[in-house]
Amino acid sequence: MMSEKFYVVPEAEHNAVVQAAYLKRGFNLEESQAAAKFSAYASWHGIRTHNAIKALHLDDHFGSKSNGCVPDAGIEKRETKFAASQIWNANKKLGQATAYAAMEEAIAMADKYGIGQVSVDNAFHYLWGGGYVMDAAKRGYIAYTNCTAALAEVVPFMGKHPTLGTNPHSWGFPTTEAIGFPIVIDWATSVVAMGRVQQFKREGQSLPPDAAVDADGKMTTDPNKVAALSTFGRHKGYGLSMINEIVAALIGGSLPTIRCRWEGVENEKHTPAFYFQVIHPDAMSGNQFAQGRSQSENLKAVLEDIVGHGNDACLLPGQIEANSAARSQKNQGLLFSSAEIEEFNAIAKECGLAVWDESSFPVAV
Amino acid sequence: MMSEKFYVVPEAEHNAVVQAAYLKRGFNLEESQAAAKFSAYASWHGIRTHNAIKALHLDDHFGSKSNGCVPDAGIEKRETKFAASQIWNANKKLGQATAYAAMEEAIAMADKYGIGQVSVDNAFHYLWGGGYVMDAAKRGYIAYTNCTAALAEVVPFMGKHPTLGTNPHSWGFPTTEAIGFPIVIDWATSVVAMGRVQQFKREGQSLPPDAAVDADGKMTTDPNKVAALSTFGRHKGYGLSMINEIVAALIGGSLPTIRCRWEGVENEKHTPAFYFQVIHPDAMSGNQFAQGRSQSENLKAVLEDIVGHGNDACLLPGQIEANSAARSQKNQGLLFSSAEIEEFNAIAKECGLAVWDESSFPVAV
Repeated sequence: MMSEKFYVVPEAEHNAVVQAAYLKRGFNLEESQAAAKFSAYASWHGIRTHNAIKALHLDDHFGSKSNGCVPDAGIEKRETKFAASQIWNANKKLGQATAYAAMEEAIAMADKYGIGQVSVDNAFHYLWGGGYVMDAAKRGYIAYTNCTAALAEVVPFMGKHPTLGTNPHSWGFPTTEAIGFPIVIDWATSVVAMGRVQQFKREGQSLPPDAAVDADGKMTTDPNKVAALSTFGRHKGYGLSMINEIVAALIGGSLPTIRCRWEGVENEKHTPAFYFQVIHPDAMSGNQFAQGRSQSENLKAVLEDIVGHGNDACLLPGQIEANSAARSQKNQGLLFSSAEIEEFNAIAKECGLAVWDESSFPVAV
Repeated sequence: MMSEKFYVVPEAEHNAVVQAAYLKRGFNLEESQAAAKFSAYASWHGIRTHNAIKALHLDDHFGSKSNGCVPDAGIEKRETKFAASQIWNANKKLGQATAYAAMEEAIAMADKYGIGQVSVDNAFHYLWGGGYVMDAAKRGYIAYTNCTAALAEVVPFMGKHPTLGTNPHSWGFPTTEAIGFPIVIDWATSVVAMGRVQQFKREGQSLPPDAAVDADGKMTTDPNKVAALSTFGRHKGYGLSMINEIVAALIGGSLPTIRCRWEGVENEKHTPAFYFQVIHPDAMSGNQFAQGRSQSENLKAVLEDIVGHGNDACLLPGQIEANSAARSQKNQGLLFSSAEIEEFNAIAKECGLAVWDESSFPVAV
């Protein structure tokens, strides 16, 4: 990333364009603001795979233009006797607005019960799960989310046919006091994403081994022969992917192979599900740390032990995002390539807004 | 497993020997019964890596004979304002007794709040995490546990020196009504266990790629050159292993590199930590399943979709254990090899009990 040329776009300018694009699609002000804020957060942390451009592409393909997402939808909260749990019907509301709201409620329950969970049925893609748990972690909480990914593109271990989503997991931990940034563990359960296969194809490169299978279910490294993706770590990634499907099934999702595919199958549901969980760190603390350390000091000592002993080349999960955030901070804005600015300008035009003049933005250091 | 010759040992006879062995080491009746019951449960489900023989070896090396585990220890429950959370100081009590008790309390909290957690400081090895979550799953709950493994044998991703335990995760799901057995996802975060490296060495075989590193931190498939293990799935398994270390650090564990190594470092703690979590499935249900299905019927439909479409070769996680349990059921007892019976007889002799006569047991079908 460091060698590519980036321009510094003020966050307010970015948010104005993104908000306008969502408003134009019929989303309400709160939803449009949530979408803009979340995209800015992703770009601030260097998450180029889930920036505003991708968010709007996703809306085009699976969202408000194709029945997957309903602008201005209201969330219904189901009655429950379980005080540390909430169950929502999101009615296909915009994922970013839903996820922000769910995490807020999970935090409130964690403050009271030590732990809280929000299960969301009839959801729409929330983009980058790591962003929500990172946000909660920065506020001092342990946070977790998973969701079922839109399409069944992944073959179960020892299988032939894709019946699982790329089903990501995201965990965030409150390590800012200890090491300066929150540890965020956030990845899909496939070895690579389908977008990466396209990239390998364009670049004429081979895939990593064990990343994908051909039409016969045989492993292939040839991006031109890829029919479906594989889970990472063989049966272990398969198990992790299965968790999202089981959780979604318990919440209310139906068959993974028809998820986000709206034609053909009657009387089945096609929506993904979200699951959120937050834990208050005080609700786990035995308060008996060695050397009279505080909980945070103990965490610091443990993390330093892990990447000590000559393990200098190791990164802590979340460190790359923290480095990107530091660069954004230093440049006082969001960093976009020339190609990305062009795409933002296409979005701006669509909304009748003035386009950006690339040369008016400083080049990022 | 099917081709090896097994003898059918009645569970009561197994339990009598195991209980006596624990009583002889000073454990109280409740602890000794818990140890016997849990070992029987492991053997019933075909878990040969964590049967009673291994449990007692573990006690020899890290437990009551070497300060890691204290027979007849009392659990102290810390005062907490968080109603869905408990925090325990296990005072190095036997892991199996502690884990059974913790899971019971987590279930009681899940019944009330939808979710409950128990964090355990100053713990001792609980053997097979999958057993506790399987038990809870059979009773209708979603259950999760992780712990920090005894020794730091695993190198962090891109590192050279082992600073992480093999840190397992275990999830259990209430799928018995849907498919006949609980789905249990349960594995270490290293590619293989250190015991497996010894086995490869004995058998003169090569390790799988990416499973271990030599003294210079370079990947090796030669079991004779192995200095430490690797995490599965590169940075993804590393992240998962890191979770156990962070959770333990928040609870009260100290430096991973001195865990269960009692000499040399003053004023640090050397104990592992446990974390348990249980969720009531009703606390996640949106109650809006397609085709008028019940939650369990929906789960069944989703699981059948995943292993359908020609994916007949796929196993569901927990299926191997369920098959072993069916074989134990069919034979009406626990299945042990001749070598295992010999080891049980050594244990029996140590306790002054009559040894088993192998030829008196039926051969398993």
